[in-house]
Amino acid sequence: MVLAITGYIALAEGALLLLPALVGLIYLELSGLAFLGTAVFSGLVGFLLIKFCKTENHTIYAREGFAIVACGWVLMSAIGALPLCFSGEVPSYFDAFFEIVSGFTTTGASVIADLDALSHAVLFWRSFTHFIGGMGVLIFIMAIIPNISDRSIHIMRAEMPGPVVGKLVPRARQTAMILYVIYLCMTVLEIVILWAGGTPFFDSMLLSFGSAGTGGFGINNAGITQPFAQWVIAVFMMLFGVNFNLYYLMLAKKVKAALKSVEMWVYFGIIATATCIIACNIFPQYTAVSESVRHSFFQTVSILTTTGYSTADFDKWPMLSKGLLFVLMFIGGCAGSTAGGLKVSRVILGFKSIFREFKRLLHPRSVSTVRFEGKPADEQTLSGVSNYFMLYMASVGLVFLALCFDKMGFVENISATVSCINNIGPGFGSIGPASTYAAFSDVSKVILSFAMLAGRLEFYPLILALVPSNLIGRNR
Amino acid sequence: MVLAITGYIALAEGALLLLPALVGLIYLELSGLAFLGTAVFSGLVGFLLIKFCKTENHTIYAREGFAIVACGWVLMSAIGALPLCFSGEVPSYFDAFFEIVSGFTTTGASVIADLDALSHAVLFWRSFTHFIGGMGVLIFIMAIIPNISDRSIHIMRAEMPGPVVGKLVPRARQTAMILYVIYLCMTVLEIVILWAGGTPFFDSMLLSFGSAGTGGFGINNAGITQPFAQWVIAVFMMLFGVNFNLYYLMLAKKVKAALKSVEMWVYFGIIATATCIIACNIFPQYTAVSESVRHSFFQTVSILTTTGYSTADFDKWPMLSKGLLFVLMFIGGCAGSTAGGLKVSRVILGFKSIFREFKRLLHPRSVSTVRFEGKPADEQTLSGVSNYFMLYMASVGLVFLALCFDKMGFVENISATVSCINNIGPGFGSIGPASTYAAFSDVSKVILSFAMLAGRLEFYPLILALVPSNLIGRNR
Repeated sequence: MVLAITGYIALAEGALLLLPALVGLIYLELSGLAFLGTAVFSGLVGFLLIKFCKTENHTIYAREGFAIVACGWVLMSAIGALPLCFSGEVPSYFDAFFEIVSGFTTTGASVIADLDALSHAVLFWRSFTHFIGGMGVLIFIMAIIPNISDRSIHIMRAEMPGPVVGKLVPRARQTAMILYVIYLCMTVLEIVILWAGGTPFFDSMLLSFGSAGTGGFGINNAGITQPFAQWVIAVFMMLFGVNFNLYYLMLAKKVKAALKSVEMWVYFGIIATATCIIACNIFPQYTAVSESVRHSFFQTVSILTTTGYSTADFDKWPMLSKGLLFVLMFIGGCAGSTAGGLKVSRVILGFKSIFREFKRLLHPRSVSTVRFEGKPADEQTLSGVSNYFMLYMASVGLVFLALCFDKMGFVENISATVSCINNIGPGFGSIGPASTYAAFSDVSKVILSFAMLAGRLEFYPLILALVPSNLIGRNR
Repeated sequence: MVLAITGYIALAEGALLLLPALVGLIYLELSGLAFLGTAVFSGLVGFLLIKFCKTENHTIYAREGFAIVACGWVLMSAIGALPLCFSGEVPSYFDAFFEIVSGFTTTGASVIADLDALSHAVLFWRSFTHFIGGMGVLIFIMAIIPNISDRSIHIMRAEMPGPVVGKLVPRARQTAMILYVIYLCMTVLEIVILWAGGTPFFDSMLLSFGSAGTGGFGINNAGITQPFAQWVIAVFMMLFGVNFNLYYLMLAKKVKAALKSVEMWVYFGIIATATCIIACNIFPQYTAVSESVRHSFFQTVSILTTTGYSTADFDKWPMLSKGLLFVLMFIGGCAGSTAGGLKVSRVILGFKSIFREFKRLLHPRSVSTVRFEGKPADEQTLSGVSNYFMLYMASVGLVFLALCFDKMGFVENISATVSCINNIGPGFGSIGPASTYAAFSDVSKVILSFAMLAGRLEFYPLILALVPSNLIGRNR
C-alpha cells in the first residue's frame, strides 16, 4: 500500500523530469539526455511498484500517512539526484543527493561553487525542485489522482507544515487543488512581473520557482543585481510566507476574515521591526538609505521565510544584524505557507502558553484558556506545540553534535544545523551566502540532507517511519 | 512585608560579611576593613527595613514569594559587590556587581584576570558567595528565623531549582534545615580530604565552597594542578549535582528508595558517556590515558553540574569535545541539587512527553500517561516543563540578541549567553576557561548579570516581580 503510493510518486517525478529534458532540448544540451533517461527510469520504477503492490482501497491511517510521506520524499530525492550525476555536472552522488534534497526541501543550500558552468537543464531542475517541494509532492499527487480514499487527509497532515491543518473545503482533494491553483497563479504573476522588469525569461522563471517554494538556490554567480528584481522578489517571498488559507479566504470574498489573522499581522510586524533595526545597523556600510533599506528588507524576508536568497554578503554585516538574522532563522514563516522554520503561529502559541504559566503560578487555582485567532486553543494543540518545540531543539542539538565529528568550526556547525533544519540555505562563517557547503565531508552532507528532510516534514514522519511500531504502539 | 523579609536578608548578609572581615584580620589585610564597613552598612539597612516595614504575620502567597526572592537576590548582590570596590581591588562597580552576581548565582564567570593580586579576604568572599548561593540564601534564612509563617514553602519553591519541590518533612523550615546540614557536612568532608591530600587549608576551603555551590571561581592563576585534588574535586562536583533528597533518603536508611531514582542514573549515565567520548577525542593531545580520562571526567562533570572549574583549556580541544560540552551546558545537574541548567529531570520529562506525542500521533484516540520516578506525572507538571523550556530558550534568544549590540563575536555571544543563563562560567573563544569576561562592555555585563540571576532563580521570580500585576492578574 505504502509502496504503491510511492510508485505514483516515482511516476509523477518521471513526468516532471521531462520538463528539464525539454529545457535541454530547447538549449540543445547533452544534459537533457540525462534527464530523459532518469525520467524513463523513474517511470519504470513507479510502474513496477504500482503493478506489484496491492492497491485494494486500504484506509490510510496516521501511520501509513507518515510512512508514505517519509518514503516518498527519500525516494524522490534519490531519483532526482541521478541526472546531476549522469550529466557529469555534479560528479559525486553525495553532493547531488545533498543538492536535490536541498532543492525539494526548499532549503537552497548548495555545494556547487560555479553556477555559470551548469547547463540550463540542470539549473532548471534545481530551481524546479523548489517549486515542487514548496507545496508538497504528495499534495500534488492527491490533487491529480482521484482514486485515493478521502482518509488521505492524514497524508496532507503529515506533509503540510504548521500546528493545525484544516481542510478549506470538505474534501481533502479539492483543498489540495485550490492550494495548488493559488500557488501556480502567484508564481506565474511573479514570472511576468520580473520578465516585464527586464530580467531574462529563463532567469525570471527560475527565480520565481525559488521564491515560490521559499527555496533560494542561486542561478548564476553574479546573483540578483537589479534593484527592481530585488524588490519584486522580496515582496513575493513575503507573500509566499503567508498562510495560503488567507488567499483562499480573500478569493472567497471573505477579506475581513482574512485581515483578522493574528499570525499574519505578527509576521508583518516581525518583518517591519527587523528591517528597521538591520537597516540602521548596516547603514554605515552602504552609500544611500534606500540601498541599506533594500538589502535589509530583502535579507530579513529571505531569512524569515526561510528562502535564503541574498543580495549582500550578510556574513560581513555587523554582529547585531547577524544575530538578529540568526534568531529569525528559528521563527520561519506562517503555518500553511511554503516557508519552513518553527512557524509564526507556533511561536505565538508558545508565548501565550508561557504567559498562561505566569498566571497559573500567581493564581494556582484559576483556570484560564489560551485564545488564538479568535478561538480557544485546546490543550492538545498547546502541548503539541511545546512537544514539537522540544523535539525541534533536541534535533538541533543532535545534528549539531553529529556535525562536530567533522572538521568545521563552531559557527559553521551551529549555523549549518539551524539553516538546514529550518530549510533556509546559507549559514555564517565559511558557509555564508557567498560560499557553499562543499567543504563538509560526505557523511556530514548525508546528515544535513536528513536534517533538511526532517525539518521540511516537521520531524514526525521521518522519526515515526524509522522507529519500530512495537516500541510505540505498545499500549494501543 | 516583602521589604521586611528583604531586611532580614540584608541583616544576614551583614553577619556573613563578618567572615571575610575575619579572614582579613587573620592575614592582616586592609581589605578586611572594606568588608567590616559593608557588614555594618548592610546590617543597618536590614535593621531599618525591618523596623519601618510591617511584619504582621501576612500570609505569603505565590506573588510575594517571587517578589521576596527577586528583590532579595538583587539587593544581596548589590551589597555584596561593595567591598570589592571599597577595597580598590575591583575598581569598577559594574565589574564588582558582575563578579558577585556570578558568585551568588554560582556561575563563576569572572572579570578578574590576575587572581594572585587579590587579597585573601576578597578571594574568600568570592568563593563564599558560591557556598551561600548554592543552597539559597532564603532557604538559609527560613532555616534560622522561626517566626516566618509556614506558607513560606512558596519562597522555597521560588528559590529551589527543579520542576517539583517537595517537602521532605511536613514543615518547610525543617526541610530547609535538613538540606543545609547535609550541604554543610559534605562541604566539610571535601575540605578535610583536600587538606589531607596536601592542598593548603585556605585553598581547600575555597575550592570546596566553589564545588559545593557548583560555582567555579578560580582561586589563583595557576589553577588546580595537583591530580589528586582534581579527582577529589571532580567526584565532589558530581555528588553536589545529585538531588539532595536522595542523601536525605539514605540518611533515613531508605537506601533502596534512593537507588531507584531514575534521574540519578540518567545523570551518571550522561557523565559516563560524555567522559568516554571526550577522553577518546582528546587522547592525541595528552601523553597518557589516565591524563586524558582525568581531564575529560573533570571537565564533563564541571560543565554538566554547571560548576565551571577547568583543569585544561577546553577551548583548545577538538570540535567534537567542545560541541559535546556545549550541549551538556544546557542539561545541567539534577533537580534539588546546587547545579544550574535545565536539570536532568526536566530533560527526561521532556523526552517522555515527546515520546507520548509519537504515540498520540499514531493512535489519536489512545490515552497514555507519562510515568516518572515510579509515579504518573500529571499534565500540569508536563506543561510546566515544556513552558519552562520555551521560556528558557526565549531568554537565551533575547540575551543573545542583547549581547549582539556589543563588539564581541558570534561564538563569544552565544557561549556567554548559554554559560551565564545556565550558571556555568567559562564559554568558548575569547571567553574560554583561560580568559575572562572583562572584554564585554558595562551594559553587556549588567545584561549578563541579570541573565545569571534569571537562570539561577529559574526565570519566573525575576519576570513576575517585574511584570505589573494587573497585566497578569486580570482574570483572577
